[in-house]
Amino acid sequence: MRQYSIVLVLSMALISSIGLAQTASTKVIEDFKPSSVNQPGKDFPQVNSQGYARFRIEAPAADSVRVSLGLGGKGGTKLMKSADGFWTGTTEGPMDEGFHYYHVNVDGGTFNDPGALNFYGSVRWESGIEIPAHDQDFYALKAVPHGNVQQILFPSKNTNTSRRAFVYTPPGYEKEQSKRYSVLYLQHGWGEDETAWSNQGHANLIMDNLIAEGKIKPFIIVMTYGMTNEIKFGGLRNFDITPFQTVLVDELIPFIDNNFRTIAKQSHRAMGGLSMGGMETRMITLNKTDVFSQYALLSGGLYKPEDIKDKSKVKLVFLSCGSKENPDGVKNAATALKNAGFNAVSYVSKGTGHEFQTWRRSLKELAPLLFKE
Amino acid sequence: MRQYSIVLVLSMALISSIGLAQTASTKVIEDFKPSSVNQPGKDFPQVNSQGYARFRIEAPAADSVRVSLGLGGKGGTKLMKSADGFWTGTTEGPMDEGFHYYHVNVDGGTFNDPGALNFYGSVRWESGIEIPAHDQDFYALKAVPHGNVQQILFPSKNTNTSRRAFVYTPPGYEKEQSKRYSVLYLQHGWGEDETAWSNQGHANLIMDNLIAEGKIKPFIIVMTYGMTNEIKFGGLRNFDITPFQTVLVDELIPFIDNNFRTIAKQSHRAMGGLSMGGMETRMITLNKTDVFSQYALLSGGLYKPEDIKDKSKVKLVFLSCGSKENPDGVKNAATALKNAGFNAVSYVSKGTGHEFQTWRRSLKELAPLLFKE
Repeated sequence: MRQYSIVLVLSMALISSIGLAQTASTKVIEDFKPSSVNQPGKDFPQVNSQGYARFRIEAPAADSVRVSLGLGGKGGTKLMKSADGFWTGTTEGPMDEGFHYYHVNVDGGTFNDPGALNFYGSVRWESGIEIPAHDQDFYALKAVPHGNVQQILFPSKNTNTSRRAFVYTPPGYEKEQSKRYSVLYLQHGWGEDETAWSNQGHANLIMDNLIAEGKIKPFIIVMTYGMTNEIKFGGLRNFDITPFQTVLVDELIPFIDNNFRTIAKQSHRAMGGLSMGGMETRMITLNKTDVFSQYALLSGGLYKPEDIKDKSKVKLVFLSCGSKENPDGVKNAATALKNAGFNAVSYVSKGTGHEFQTWRRSLKELAPLLFKE
Repeated sequence: MRQYSIVLVLSMALISSIGLAQTASTKVIEDFKPSSVNQPGKDFPQVNSQGYARFRIEAPAADSVRVSLGLGGKGGTKLMKSADGFWTGTTEGPMDEGFHYYHVNVDGGTFNDPGALNFYGSVRWESGIEIPAHDQDFYALKAVPHGNVQQILFPSKNTNTSRRAFVYTPPGYEKEQSKRYSVLYLQHGWGEDETAWSNQGHANLIMDNLIAEGKIKPFIIVMTYGMTNEIKFGGLRNFDITPFQTVLVDELIPFIDNNFRTIAKQSHRAMGGLSMGGMETRMITLNKTDVFSQYALLSGGLYKPEDIKDKSKVKLVFLSCGSKENPDGVKNAATALKNAGFNAVSYVSKGTGHEFQTWRRSLKELAPLLFKE
């Protein structure tokens, strides 16, 4: 490693001047550090204080190496080969704050970056990179009491399998054995799975930190796989919610209520989801008004007042998205719901798009609103 | 995918004839199926009923693609390019039963197989493949009650971090709230981490199945990261056990006893480990005779009778390895311990080497011997 670092300094200098030429007005600051979600001991990918990402991949005999991450519409970032057999490149501009999926194209094949940890997205385990956010403290791992993330396997007669879910139990759950808890059922987006909200979403750390600060009353979060009927990209128009709704409502919820110390009542049960998980949340909450009392769509569609037949059964409607998505749509929908007498709240994440930073922030905003007496 | 499958049938026929030529006496049976640890929806890698593994990787512009898995001493398996831009190849012979790590070399760079799930080994997330074993039923996911695998974050003053561990709690743990459990502390090998025993070891499923069959009394398993002081490969000679021993004995065990319903006594506490984890187990159990009463080394060294100063404190010594490792060493060591009056048991896994199939089987043999009254 030590030998490489000298070569690296030289190639960094080269690359930064290329970056300068391309972006003209912006000087790339040479304070790149390894991304916080790199594999142990890996120096690349790196991120600088402006949010530029830099990649370095070994493939001495390759003819072409590209990284899918880059400024929109430019087809990612092309890496250049140095004499040491490593391909290096920097994004043409700063990336949005937060987490991004990406992959590497080596001579026409799709691979992951050997330096980065993998996260399940796009129906595969993809490389991930973290652009430090100004507000990253709210999902940081801190010296506070931590809840557990429990992998459970629950029987599903309808799909004839044991299915997996993750259950966040808040700090104190193990010890306070007479206490019972409300439950949020929280869904991932298209191409992701039940690992997403913990791994890339840091839902557990967001909760731990909110609880430590006294901002919320502890509750349980349950996350399971929402693509029960193998949803193809673009096939959402003909989406049938029945298979997933059956697993969630008829199988998982009774299992959770039977095996965890929940308050097994509609008033203490919420459902939320991001993107496709929001679409599922919308359909299921409207179908099953006696099951959930609090609804949250994170970049995942809207409710109109006329969608909801019995206003008395709904305690909260939460709608959110990134400022680069459809903020007016979200705000206007919440206003219409409020005007119709609903407890509706909208939230717009500044400077983010259809990505996990929007959803981390949305969970932080949502959690204190849930399960009010 | 449908278009590819026709090409695939043709290329399979080609490849199998190459395989025949190379192995001469063995006919490769064309009953290849996707490996059970492939990424969702991925057709490759595949395995046939003889244990041959076949790989297929897209990299149309690459000059060379190799897979690290293959018969010993042959440098893995070289893939051949077809006109469709996919590289395909079959191992020259059958692989040992069970789980294997591997990676792909594309034009001199090391990547993972986009078709396979990743598992942490060799200090990185590597591709994994599963060769169906004749006895795979004991670690299969079955319709039995399942325990949970809980991710915990415990405070570690000595390393100034929150550290991660996984805790297997057996089925019934949540409900039988007056019951207390014995604990096995179970360590991974060099280059692996605290995910290994659940992900590639299936420790949770092995336990679930043994419990369902009434072969063991339920107990808790705790798995944490054993490479506290960044052990370099080849640096084990100068290994200092103190940092990990401190985390395990002074920090993790009190946390577990404080947060889970354990029987917090030496008589109900065991330690085991595979490979480097066995070396750690041996050092810590000999140092901390008042902490553990039952010791298990899985392909991880031996105890001599003279190593153990106070025989009365040791209730069980379990030594195991694969038949391709050092079976006589393991058997002779157990015999010497028995002759010296110890309750010592040896186990040799037939037809396996220094790999997870040996350790899965070892856990299955060990579990019924632990925590006898």
